[in-house]
Amino acid sequence: MNTDPYTLTATEALSQIEAGELSTVAWITSCQERIRQREPEIRAWAYINEQVIGDVEERIRCDGRPSIPIGVKDIIDVFGLPTMMGTDFHDPAPAVREGGSIAILRESGCVFMGKTVTTELGHRNPGPTRNPKDTRHTPGGSSSGSAAAVADYMVPICLGTQTSGSVVRPASYCGVLGYKPTYGDFDKTGILANAPSMDTLGILARSVDDIGLLRKLLLEEKVDKICDADLSALSFGVLRAPPWETADVEVRDLIEDFTRTLSASGARVADIQLDLEVSRLQVLHRLISGYEFRRSIAFERTKHLDLLSSVLRNGRLADGERVCRREYQSALQELAGLRLGLAGAFGDVDIVISPSASGVAPATLDSTGDAAFNSAWTLAGNPVITLPLFHAEASGLPIGCQFTAGVAQDDLLLAAAKKIMMLFGPPTFAA
Amino acid sequence: MNTDPYTLTATEALSQIEAGELSTVAWITSCQERIRQREPEIRAWAYINEQVIGDVEERIRCDGRPSIPIGVKDIIDVFGLPTMMGTDFHDPAPAVREGGSIAILRESGCVFMGKTVTTELGHRNPGPTRNPKDTRHTPGGSSSGSAAAVADYMVPICLGTQTSGSVVRPASYCGVLGYKPTYGDFDKTGILANAPSMDTLGILARSVDDIGLLRKLLLEEKVDKICDADLSALSFGVLRAPPWETADVEVRDLIEDFTRTLSASGARVADIQLDLEVSRLQVLHRLISGYEFRRSIAFERTKHLDLLSSVLRNGRLADGERVCRREYQSALQELAGLRLGLAGAFGDVDIVISPSASGVAPATLDSTGDAAFNSAWTLAGNPVITLPLFHAEASGLPIGCQFTAGVAQDDLLLAAAKKIMMLFGPPTFAA
Repeated sequence: MNTDPYTLTATEALSQIEAGELSTVAWITSCQERIRQREPEIRAWAYINEQVIGDVEERIRCDGRPSIPIGVKDIIDVFGLPTMMGTDFHDPAPAVREGGSIAILRESGCVFMGKTVTTELGHRNPGPTRNPKDTRHTPGGSSSGSAAAVADYMVPICLGTQTSGSVVRPASYCGVLGYKPTYGDFDKTGILANAPSMDTLGILARSVDDIGLLRKLLLEEKVDKICDADLSALSFGVLRAPPWETADVEVRDLIEDFTRTLSASGARVADIQLDLEVSRLQVLHRLISGYEFRRSIAFERTKHLDLLSSVLRNGRLADGERVCRREYQSALQELAGLRLGLAGAFGDVDIVISPSASGVAPATLDSTGDAAFNSAWTLAGNPVITLPLFHAEASGLPIGCQFTAGVAQDDLLLAAAKKIMMLFGPPTFAA
Repeated sequence: MNTDPYTLTATEALSQIEAGELSTVAWITSCQERIRQREPEIRAWAYINEQVIGDVEERIRCDGRPSIPIGVKDIIDVFGLPTMMGTDFHDPAPAVREGGSIAILRESGCVFMGKTVTTELGHRNPGPTRNPKDTRHTPGGSSSGSAAAVADYMVPICLGTQTSGSVVRPASYCGVLGYKPTYGDFDKTGILANAPSMDTLGILARSVDDIGLLRKLLLEEKVDKICDADLSALSFGVLRAPPWETADVEVRDLIEDFTRTLSASGARVADIQLDLEVSRLQVLHRLISGYEFRRSIAFERTKHLDLLSSVLRNGRLADGERVCRREYQSALQELAGLRLGLAGAFGDVDIVISPSASGVAPATLDSTGDAAFNSAWTLAGNPVITLPLFHAEASGLPIGCQFTAGVAQDDLLLAAAKKIMMLFGPPTFAA
């Protein structure tokens, strides 16, 4: 093979390894070399694990199985590595217990290339990471380093987390795939909590197959091929609910064009009316996430308040201070009703289409952009994937398209996503 | 005052401190002395914090406020103290970040006397703790040390957690009060997860006032007196749903007598039919808690399987292995419906009365008893308090009575509990 191994998806690399055309060590060494070369410019990593080749060789000695190199957002505990959570005041002592999902992935053959940059405590204050597609632009957040590392071919797959839009938005801005499963599907122990009622572990990758692979590993289920979806058997709903009109005209036009193409290919495509549900979910998202965040970071708030950014103090922390318990409790009650209502709506439509973000990555490193298109789905708990289907005419920067399925319909969502990428996705992700 | 300070509730001690009749240091020193004297027999503590008087003096220097001494179940991280989780293989390194609820309590003036014994990973395999009412009997679990330390006057208040019946059962067995709030009311960060969909932080104490005090501190709300409840304005429902018939005849008779007395005092008392709901909740509890527990302890399961007890491996871990994701997801869906249905039932009745446990603490140190009377409410998320209203005729051992209110009706529950303790509670808790 002539391709540099670091450009491969995990599925491609594992297939070459199985065919004897590639060794695990060569693959991971290639990723390491890519990181060494590109990290000074991209700044995707909070900590690079220098022991990783040792872990790979240990595994080969033990059972001969190949390893899969993964990057982990630095709010998730990995045994033996520090967890800094986007601050400089946390104790850099290596974690003595690791997240359940990390332990499960380790057991299944993953090795951890390092910890990827997060915004401060998973909120909005940016880290140093730059967007590989144009380093003057934000990579988005809070899973900033995870999106940038995958987009820049440093590692095939990264873990991220989403409380508002922290997987989908950076994936869209960096031109990769970002997947947030049904709420509750992946274990969240050992992960810094922001708003536990909606915090979700997600996956950033360069192919639907890689997302499907990691999903199965995280669920400790048999890894199998993603089903071949028949688009003509699927019903899509285009969601033009607010904040639709806040998206750039180009984004809206690209989605309208895409839905026409999808329809022409045989899929059923119609409008879906969820204006009331989405706007209530957005209001409840702010209430619930604010109230819970303020408690979740009580250690930092009470012990290190002076060291927290004004973005954090004036953002979700201030939101939380304005919410009383009665409002919080009635918001949770209303949410239960909205979730039931949405389950009904997803009886009529399989997949909802909406923008992943209002436009391309903003030309700044001081902000990570806006999660207005994502927060309702995060709170509702539906599975979501963003696919890098479009590019802006002027800048060439990527624009994602967000697909949402009914709760627990992740298999259907990934099957549809795979078919859409095959038919309408960019011809190649080659570096 | 002639009473030894360690016998006081926190509310009583704070009142004496305010009146200048007691000093914080004298109070906490008295508790320490009690611990030193009794610990060899009771074995309630996994770790005793020798720095606590230093913390108290520091607070007095800073703002002159009194401190409240608290014991913390050893699955909850407290900054600077080890967290062993009822195992001997966890790293005894001091925690570098503490739970949100701990940080909130610390900020509000609590000091941490130490870590109380828990069963192995919060499941069923017992620690060394003995029941202070009769040391041949189990204190119950998994908040074993918390219940024993409060019952034995080592400390006025302890934190515990409940996934099945781990606050209510040990409180009932040890003859103290145990309170589990509405699911979601207290922050759970920094606490070993067992089954996040139902894990709840709770309080063990010797008075309703102390529970009300700690609740307000945990909620960061103004501490005020618990309202005076008018029992004749309240409607009680007696729940004789299964597992009612598995309770000892003595327990059932005591509850029947009590409800007659309650009725004679003017309260409305009627039967409540929730057989179907309770039995489904018990089935779902086993499914959901098993599935989630297996993931939550993935670190221990993958790295230290040989060091886990057979009780744990053959208990909830084996339960979890038998549950597939589809069953888990449909259990969560069914739970959402059951919670809505229960909200309707609590429109007709204010407080449900049922046994806290099937009988007195079993005469063994090899088991912590059974949570059959508690698990449905833990999963449903309703607030629950057990009150030490009864004693067994033969052994004199305590028997609790369990009171459950509607979701978010914690204030009403505590007000009723206070009135019930005043009218029908034991005349004194004096040592």
